[in-house]
Amino acid sequence: MSDNTRPPAESDRDRTPAENAQLALLLEVSGTPKPGNVDRHRDLDGLRFEHFMAGAVGAAAGLRRAEAGDPVGVAFEEAVAGMATQQGGNTQFGCLLLLVPLVRAAATDDLSPAGVSEIVAATTVDDAVQFYRAFEHVDVAVGDPPPDADALDVRRGAAAESTLRERELPLAAIMELAADPAEGVPDGNAREWVTGFDRAFTAADKLLADSGPVGDRTARLFLDLLAAQPDTLVATTHDAATAREVSQRAATVAERIAADGDLTAAEELAGEFVDAGYNPGTTADLAAAALFIALERGLSV
Amino acid sequence: MSDNTRPPAESDRDRTPAENAQLALLLEVSGTPKPGNVDRHRDLDGLRFEHFMAGAVGAAAGLRRAEAGDPVGVAFEEAVAGMATQQGGNTQFGCLLLLVPLVRAAATDDLSPAGVSEIVAATTVDDAVQFYRAFEHVDVAVGDPPPDADALDVRRGAAAESTLRERELPLAAIMELAADPAEGVPDGNAREWVTGFDRAFTAADKLLADSGPVGDRTARLFLDLLAAQPDTLVATTHDAATAREVSQRAATVAERIAADGDLTAAEELAGEFVDAGYNPGTTADLAAAALFIALERGLSV
Repeated sequence: MSDNTRPPAESDRDRTPAENAQLALLLEVSGTPKPGNVDRHRDLDGLRFEHFMAGAVGAAAGLRRAEAGDPVGVAFEEAVAGMATQQGGNTQFGCLLLLVPLVRAAATDDLSPAGVSEIVAATTVDDAVQFYRAFEHVDVAVGDPPPDADALDVRRGAAAESTLRERELPLAAIMELAADPAEGVPDGNAREWVTGFDRAFTAADKLLADSGPVGDRTARLFLDLLAAQPDTLVATTHDAATAREVSQRAATVAERIAADGDLTAAEELAGEFVDAGYNPGTTADLAAAALFIALERGLSV
Repeated sequence: MSDNTRPPAESDRDRTPAENAQLALLLEVSGTPKPGNVDRHRDLDGLRFEHFMAGAVGAAAGLRRAEAGDPVGVAFEEAVAGMATQQGGNTQFGCLLLLVPLVRAAATDDLSPAGVSEIVAATTVDDAVQFYRAFEHVDVAVGDPPPDADALDVRRGAAAESTLRERELPLAAIMELAADPAEGVPDGNAREWVTGFDRAFTAADKLLADSGPVGDRTARLFLDLLAAQPDTLVATTHDAATAREVSQRAATVAERIAADGDLTAAEELAGEFVDAGYNPGTTADLAAAALFIALERGLSV
């Protein structure tokens, strides 16, 4: 660098909540190694790093609507429509489902479990309708609904509208059903919605308490989260036993990393999970939510 | 993936010019190997991948102002101020200097050498003042001006305003001075401004004619551009002879890659350039501009 006659420049503005949410999407996918997922060093078949870059670019307009105070459902649907402007398919649907209410909470200056629970409690039937519409923009891997809940299968998309309106189901109620289904796999993201984003807030504290480059912190957090709870996407695309086994493998590696901070053991696991097709996408969604909260609370990049 | 009762979802909107510009920033830094620069696989000392992510997030508001028709200088200064909301220092100042007029041209439906030349020709003294102000947000590596041009040293920042107004110098005139200085290193980005972005448009054609993932295309393009012309930043931070040598080294590797498409030879060069502190940043700026044009012209991600 050449000499400079002025003192070093300092940033004179902060990132907005919508900007921090977009950055969280980018930092999440950049963290490495994140066993089984696309990361800075790994692509999957047909789902590559650049698809996540483009997904994050396209999602921003919807995130800005959440910040501006538009209804959660409207903002979410727009974010997903923008995310879908790339060829990789579903890159960040689950991340956005967590980020949109968190951005609303941050924009109302109450980014806390209570604050985001208020946003969740205020969702309406219209929000639920928009949520279902979002499934029309991109193919999302979901399990089959129980036979008696077929009318509320998210794969019905906009066709579910009449049922939602008849039964007067706000988006929060849809999340309650998904978080605690009569049968099948409870949805990890829906569980965040109904628990005041409990795991995301706890994870954000871990990110802030950790040290070193944010990419390494993200990798360590991802393993901890995966170790602590089976991943919904792995359970959906494989089965519950596989999801438990994946988490047990992650736990073994996480313990070794906790002992010395060295991520090498996770590199091996990453190769293995990619080969086996274990893709813990719901855990990545949670990591993105945690990154957002940490950025809002001062995580420096 | 589970069965889906609907046909595969397709994206139902296009990216805007501002979105494509942000994506170009992200794709540029994600391309690997890009010898001497931060890329998907390499960080420099104190300048890491995540700083480029945050820079691209912060720059977007300024890029949207360019798209909306705000003056080039205003949009550029806002983009740089946003880019500076991270701890790595100057990540994408030069990229933005190229992208802002290109976004303006794209937003007026004339993204062509003639179209962007019209945008350049229409710049005012106010644009020049804003351009100088942008240097206050971040430390940019620039060479010393000739003794008689000290009043126009960009490092003066806002203090240059009175000189700019007295001499009635629009931003296009500042670029002409930098593109063809009485002494010292001609600025590669300023040369784009005064030549209708000649190299950027040619490079965009190359990206579109190439095949494979966009990250590989970007890496090949970067080497071609570096081989074809010495990098301004290397000449500024080292000297003209070093910049020529760096380009000769790149040319040797680029020839091998042209023969078989294999990027392995560039990996070795990347390690070597990083170790030597050769950082061809101006060539990266040009690659970002080319990516933007290619995205606008249909490069699929």
